[in-house]
Amino acid sequence: MEPCQLSAAQAAVLIKERKLSAEELVRSCLERISARDALVRAWLHLEPDAAIRAAREADKRPPTGPLHGIPIGVKDVIDTLDYPTTQNSPIYPGLRVGRDAACVGLVRGAGGLILGKTDTVEFASSGRKALTRNPYNPAHTPGGTSSGSGAAVADFMVPLAFGTQTSGSLIRPAAFNGIYAMKPTWNRVSREGLRMYAASLDTVGWYGREVADLTLMGQALGLPLHGATIPLRGLRVGLCRTPMWSQIEPAGANALQQAAERLADAGAIVEPLELPERFADLRAAHSAIGQREAGIAFLPEYVNAYPLLAQEIRDKVENTAGISDQTLLDSYALADACRPVFDGLFGASLDVVLAPSAPGEAPEGLHTTGNAVFNTTWTLLHVPCVNIPAGVGASNLPVGVQLIGPRLSDARLLAIAQTLAPVIDVDPQRGLRELW
Amino acid sequence: MEPCQLSAAQAAVLIKERKLSAEELVRSCLERISARDALVRAWLHLEPDAAIRAAREADKRPPTGPLHGIPIGVKDVIDTLDYPTTQNSPIYPGLRVGRDAACVGLVRGAGGLILGKTDTVEFASSGRKALTRNPYNPAHTPGGTSSGSGAAVADFMVPLAFGTQTSGSLIRPAAFNGIYAMKPTWNRVSREGLRMYAASLDTVGWYGREVADLTLMGQALGLPLHGATIPLRGLRVGLCRTPMWSQIEPAGANALQQAAERLADAGAIVEPLELPERFADLRAAHSAIGQREAGIAFLPEYVNAYPLLAQEIRDKVENTAGISDQTLLDSYALADACRPVFDGLFGASLDVVLAPSAPGEAPEGLHTTGNAVFNTTWTLLHVPCVNIPAGVGASNLPVGVQLIGPRLSDARLLAIAQTLAPVIDVDPQRGLRELW
Repeated sequence: MEPCQLSAAQAAVLIKERKLSAEELVRSCLERISARDALVRAWLHLEPDAAIRAAREADKRPPTGPLHGIPIGVKDVIDTLDYPTTQNSPIYPGLRVGRDAACVGLVRGAGGLILGKTDTVEFASSGRKALTRNPYNPAHTPGGTSSGSGAAVADFMVPLAFGTQTSGSLIRPAAFNGIYAMKPTWNRVSREGLRMYAASLDTVGWYGREVADLTLMGQALGLPLHGATIPLRGLRVGLCRTPMWSQIEPAGANALQQAAERLADAGAIVEPLELPERFADLRAAHSAIGQREAGIAFLPEYVNAYPLLAQEIRDKVENTAGISDQTLLDSYALADACRPVFDGLFGASLDVVLAPSAPGEAPEGLHTTGNAVFNTTWTLLHVPCVNIPAGVGASNLPVGVQLIGPRLSDARLLAIAQTLAPVIDVDPQRGLRELW
Repeated sequence: MEPCQLSAAQAAVLIKERKLSAEELVRSCLERISARDALVRAWLHLEPDAAIRAAREADKRPPTGPLHGIPIGVKDVIDTLDYPTTQNSPIYPGLRVGRDAACVGLVRGAGGLILGKTDTVEFASSGRKALTRNPYNPAHTPGGTSSGSGAAVADFMVPLAFGTQTSGSLIRPAAFNGIYAMKPTWNRVSREGLRMYAASLDTVGWYGREVADLTLMGQALGLPLHGATIPLRGLRVGLCRTPMWSQIEPAGANALQQAAERLADAGAIVEPLELPERFADLRAAHSAIGQREAGIAFLPEYVNAYPLLAQEIRDKVENTAGISDQTLLDSYALADACRPVFDGLFGASLDVVLAPSAPGEAPEGLHTTGNAVFNTTWTLLHVPCVNIPAGVGASNLPVGVQLIGPRLSDARLLAIAQTLAPVIDVDPQRGLRELW
């Protein structure tokens, strides 16, 4: 087994036990990138020599932090000390800010090594797509906007990577690439140093190849540890088809159904969960908030670099959709009202929500990154979501389901995911078999 | 009259008419700084030669943007292309990010010149105080955390400056320095590139020496123009003593009372406004949210630079106040519920709220920056606030009152302030008389 095939959690143990060096791991990742990235195109910025030097330095220090010696990919809308932050925008071709985003500083503090920057849709918003391809079938999108991070983790180029979600940019690529993802509660992890798109929605999240990877990164980012193992038997799972169910595809419907059945067979109490009626309007509210807040965030580029800004983003600044102040305030009010209602569903009769991560498999072509219809409600509710790989569809591409908890239950949600993942993700070796 | 004595609005007209050059204005500001800053200590970073060069370049271009050739001070928690961002923290003594914050990019796009960076309380939060003194009496604080920006605008060192408000850091220094300030609706102006303290509270605002200055800057920042003049006669003013009235001092009470009487005498309809009862709990909610969100924002420094972080900030990261997740969520819910209620007060029977900007005059000493008790409710409500100078107290130091509108009424609030300011601010030449 090559070191780059190890999950972050596996590698962390071996490094701690001095059975694997950070340098070996980083070299293995770089070799994999070298072999595969001409096809996958996950990476925008890499400095292999610097990465090897940093790994050697890490090997000289005693392992202290949870991520000691673990290489990490960073979506190129997130600032790092040592790489450019181009945001896949022609406005910032070589911008170097020389300062770590909060999340990057925290993983460094935990011993992590920043391997490089991954491709993204322009500003993690709209416009230029990433050049990244789906590792399972390069004719298909890896999803977006965290395209490079999702594909890089799936393709064994790096065991952990940061992505972001404002609509569905983190969970959807996880589903399309057959990997794990954690979107924490909004502002549970500082978004400072992440390019702003919509202030009240933007969320930093991360990818790994098993739940233990997500937990390891969560630890570095300041999530509390959930000590106890949560038993599966009797766990109350709310099967939520969501008000957007008409947009599900056979692969997505099948994955959700199978996950629910497997959980029930294993002893969980799975019951349908119907969201209160007004939750159906959260999708439109998310759209209004996202567009108007984008209009605020991208005004500087609109003023100073109009010719280099994507038309889709100009439209948001110009508010061509004509979203009124009152609609914006009503949208905030709806979201504000629904959040405690959703949190309140949990407790006596509900432990976790099970819902689709995306309509189905990754669409063909790189002109689209897929549809966020099954993500925006949860983003707007500010609740934590974990993607679990859940088999494949008719095109033999991965499909995912997501687990969702109430706000600030991040650590508990990861513990629940740890219990449920082995039941849902019945072919965890598929990547090693198909991509290697 | 020296050019630096001009308000931004006055200078902009003269520059546009080619009766004043940007270079003359910048040189005049630099001379004033040279003469006074050893005493006032408003500035952390200045590059006089670069500023003069930039002014000369501006003089070569035709005046286009509303701020053409106008020098602007920037609180040192806000990034600029050309200066360090030290945040008054020993952790970042020479940090240069080489990228403008959104607000700075917008003023540059409008033709503004960044004169330099102004002193601030550590991270605009707590810990190290600015070295800045109150220009009216150097034994007194200029307020904080936007200490340098407030004092610099008051002392004729620069006609406009950016500050920030998470509790009362913008409006309070305006009151203590006898100048005008605009705190816009939360996220009406992008806070990107402002050091994060509390994500759902941090607001970029600005100082000027008359309402027209605030409007000019607002235009550069993308606020719509409110075309028509708002007549004073019949304007419905809600005199709001707030649930914190027990903490008012004689100077503050007197200023509010006089402002109300003058407005009534001039034809406004001034009536007491009692906030709904549960609004009294917003102060505690603000404190809970501010502390918990600070714990998220400052975790990277806590992990990576603990010895250099102020104990007050460490305490927030450690949550020594013991604010539970439920208290945090309840605090969000209260604020979320009160916002539309406050907005809804306006309309048929209310045009603007008149409230204290601070308890009274600036306290003596630099160990304190004064009390934000009259600011935090409005910050948490996300509503726009304008400080208007309102005479002096027993110590002959300035006192202010604030005008407050509903969310997203920023342009209208500035138009109302334009109408009301001449009635409230009865001695607008006081700075020229006392500080020159």
